[in-house]
Amino acid sequence: MNYRLIAFVFGQISLIVGSLLCIPLFMALGYHEDTTVPGFGVTVAVAVVLGIAGLMCRPPKDKRDLRPSSGFAVCGLFWVYVALIGAMPFCISGRIPNYVDALFETISGFTTTGASILTEVESMPRSLLFWRALTQWIGGMGVLVFVIAILPGNDKMSTALLKAEIPGPQFGKLVSKLRFTTRILYAIYIVMTLVLVALLCICKMPVFDSFCHAFATASTGGFSVRNASIGAYNSASIDVVITIFMILFSVNFNIYYLILIGHVLKALKNSELIGMVTLYVVATAVIAINLGVGGNYDNAADAVRYSAFNAASVMTTTGFATTDFAAWPALSQAILLGLMCIGGSAGSTAGGLKMSRAIILAKSSSISVKRTLSPRSVYTLKMDGKALGEDTVRNVQTFFVLYILITVLSTMLVSFGNGSFKPDFTTNLSAVIACFNNVGPGIGAVGPASNFHSYGIFAKLVLSADMLLGRLEILPILLMFVPKSWKRF
Amino acid sequence: MNYRLIAFVFGQISLIVGSLLCIPLFMALGYHEDTTVPGFGVTVAVAVVLGIAGLMCRPPKDKRDLRPSSGFAVCGLFWVYVALIGAMPFCISGRIPNYVDALFETISGFTTTGASILTEVESMPRSLLFWRALTQWIGGMGVLVFVIAILPGNDKMSTALLKAEIPGPQFGKLVSKLRFTTRILYAIYIVMTLVLVALLCICKMPVFDSFCHAFATASTGGFSVRNASIGAYNSASIDVVITIFMILFSVNFNIYYLILIGHVLKALKNSELIGMVTLYVVATAVIAINLGVGGNYDNAADAVRYSAFNAASVMTTTGFATTDFAAWPALSQAILLGLMCIGGSAGSTAGGLKMSRAIILAKSSSISVKRTLSPRSVYTLKMDGKALGEDTVRNVQTFFVLYILITVLSTMLVSFGNGSFKPDFTTNLSAVIACFNNVGPGIGAVGPASNFHSYGIFAKLVLSADMLLGRLEILPILLMFVPKSWKRF
Repeated sequence: MNYRLIAFVFGQISLIVGSLLCIPLFMALGYHEDTTVPGFGVTVAVAVVLGIAGLMCRPPKDKRDLRPSSGFAVCGLFWVYVALIGAMPFCISGRIPNYVDALFETISGFTTTGASILTEVESMPRSLLFWRALTQWIGGMGVLVFVIAILPGNDKMSTALLKAEIPGPQFGKLVSKLRFTTRILYAIYIVMTLVLVALLCICKMPVFDSFCHAFATASTGGFSVRNASIGAYNSASIDVVITIFMILFSVNFNIYYLILIGHVLKALKNSELIGMVTLYVVATAVIAINLGVGGNYDNAADAVRYSAFNAASVMTTTGFATTDFAAWPALSQAILLGLMCIGGSAGSTAGGLKMSRAIILAKSSSISVKRTLSPRSVYTLKMDGKALGEDTVRNVQTFFVLYILITVLSTMLVSFGNGSFKPDFTTNLSAVIACFNNVGPGIGAVGPASNFHSYGIFAKLVLSADMLLGRLEILPILLMFVPKSWKRF
Repeated sequence: MNYRLIAFVFGQISLIVGSLLCIPLFMALGYHEDTTVPGFGVTVAVAVVLGIAGLMCRPPKDKRDLRPSSGFAVCGLFWVYVALIGAMPFCISGRIPNYVDALFETISGFTTTGASILTEVESMPRSLLFWRALTQWIGGMGVLVFVIAILPGNDKMSTALLKAEIPGPQFGKLVSKLRFTTRILYAIYIVMTLVLVALLCICKMPVFDSFCHAFATASTGGFSVRNASIGAYNSASIDVVITIFMILFSVNFNIYYLILIGHVLKALKNSELIGMVTLYVVATAVIAINLGVGGNYDNAADAVRYSAFNAASVMTTTGFATTDFAAWPALSQAILLGLMCIGGSAGSTAGGLKMSRAIILAKSSSISVKRTLSPRSVYTLKMDGKALGEDTVRNVQTFFVLYILITVLSTMLVSFGNGSFKPDFTTNLSAVIACFNNVGPGIGAVGPASNFHSYGIFAKLVLSADMLLGRLEILPILLMFVPKSWKRF
């Protein structure tokens, strides 16, 4: 492990986070918010001091290499640091006095989960609401992707870090230079976010709300500035715009790059895209029928409208709500939990297992069953016309085992030490699923009509860890605790 | 596929089931039970007629081969037949008038699940109660294992069938002749069952109850002849005896064979055994503490007693209860659900994922994570000192994927079409976990204090399929529906 290099990159990240924190700081100054100005001020100061300290460790030019296997643990460490510092304004301003609560909220932001411990957001200072939305927007595409996009650096080190941060079973570059890849990704991200802001304004959402909700949609985060989430506007046009953009942002960004360079047909034949659209349409239809038959809504149009929005919100792991889906019938709830687990596409801002992993698991299982019938035949697992290596398949299977194991263990852990709050099994399991897959609201007592504030400190820490495990896809957080990751090289 | 051979074996099985049905028939005659005599009489007649028809298809000696890959589907088919015929006495006698209900109860018996649709068992005729217990005892070691143990047959065909029926990731013979292996297994099974009957009689359980409960314990089935299950006796000595025997029967029977031939040390070093005992002790302790702190029982001794019995009941997938564990705190419930899923050992009468699979999944995941840190190192997965082949590991991983997939899909399916009964998510998930892992009672509205009678017909069929999928470990039932399995050879 190259400690000087890590300290140096750490310094760069700290300065960038400090600069980002200046936006809400200026906002707080502009709005004359007395409590939040010191909150952001102190945090910026700390970030800058730590940043400069880090920069002073600058290693010589020929010693800027990072072992690929160390990238995971380092990436995990940087995320923990960013969360720790990002939580400070909430705490210092006194709006979320308990630091564990503030940490939960911040990790929920950066990991684009959208789970909240705030029972009332509309009275929060605007600068804090904006910071909450901004953490999601930065976390969506990736903190390190952001750093690599704007700073000069070495490609080998950047690859090691990005492999850990960009979600999905495989890592590929769009163009040969990694820095340009990250810039293309961010350019697409920024343009699409701005289009969304414009559309929301046209749908008569206030400008501040439009920015915050666009950030939360683009990152599939789901923090809202209204207590009733998107349901507060009760506007069909806003519902439609956000539904479409939630889905657009949960699609692999490589597809947009393919479209930009003219390969439209190839882009549309992507098996992950087809899988997602199919799953979404089927799930929406079944939920709508279930709601219609169950008599949850007065007419069929409402059943379809609420089903389409909330299924998209949950599948893309955004977590907005236009109704309290925790009050839906059991079948719809089970489908929502299933959608939460599968999540969006690899290489998007969405969380969850990812559609590509689900496809690889399904195909490899089907091959394994076929092999029982014809043991001597030769089978190759193909995706989008390319054969997948044994290694990729094995990694996906391991990921799945760890994924289930973490879900089960976390459900046990969060059941524990919640004082007078006695969450039932459904609440605990759905809280874990909602946090681990970076969705936000679950069902039961953590549904859209309520949130996570009743949980005890221990459960909140477990859920915070789940959010990080989910966003970074397990390994970076796990390997942080393996001494071998930190071995000098 | 060799259809004549299948018809011939089918005939043998039908005659054996017919002979077994004579035991409750004679019992019914002895007790002068008017309703059950025709029930068993008609069923025996049908089984004998179908049996003779099957025997008439006897293939010539040189054509008694079965493709190994066909064994799975054939095994699945035989089990479905045995369940269909075994359900008849319940239905004809009018004690379970709905055939789907009778089928659910019979499949629950043969698969050693112990899930019931009967709200009141104490008023049932003794012959039916005995048949219910007997289905479990036969299903525990295996219907086909029983057939192969008592009839002459060809080793190649028997291997094909037994691979499908004996649970666990690997299949091994104790002695070179397969028929002798099955006889050794049944001998151990019979002796241990008789010892248990004697012990229960000593603990002052009535003789009839002792036999029925011994059958239900030996098979880790869990059907009781009392409404309050083992709790009805409220006897600490009975609790202790049954706890010990539930665990003994969920241990790999190869271990008893090793002990019999004098390899005691080797037997005790078995990693599956060590894993099970460790898991059981830890789970019991955590549940006891959780119950003690939660104030569910008056004193610590009771908390330990109820924890020890019910954790063993659930981990061994027996499903007896001495208390309503659906009323325990959420942590204890989550642990019970986890224990249900892991289940007992391979090569035992217990259900679930099996401890050996859990160990293989854990070890292969750990290797996969280590490979991320040192990609060039060579790793071998060893269990009990032997290296496991890539094929075994891959099959276990595939099994796990299918296992989770079936659990999720079934939970959605059983949510559906239950009329005025509106089971919540916990009830549906735990009903599926309890049936698929052959446990019996779940939590929520299918806990020990209630049962499965409120579910609709469709949900009962789904749960019946889950029980068969669980007992035969997925592939036999799945491959029944793959046309290639039935291809002529």
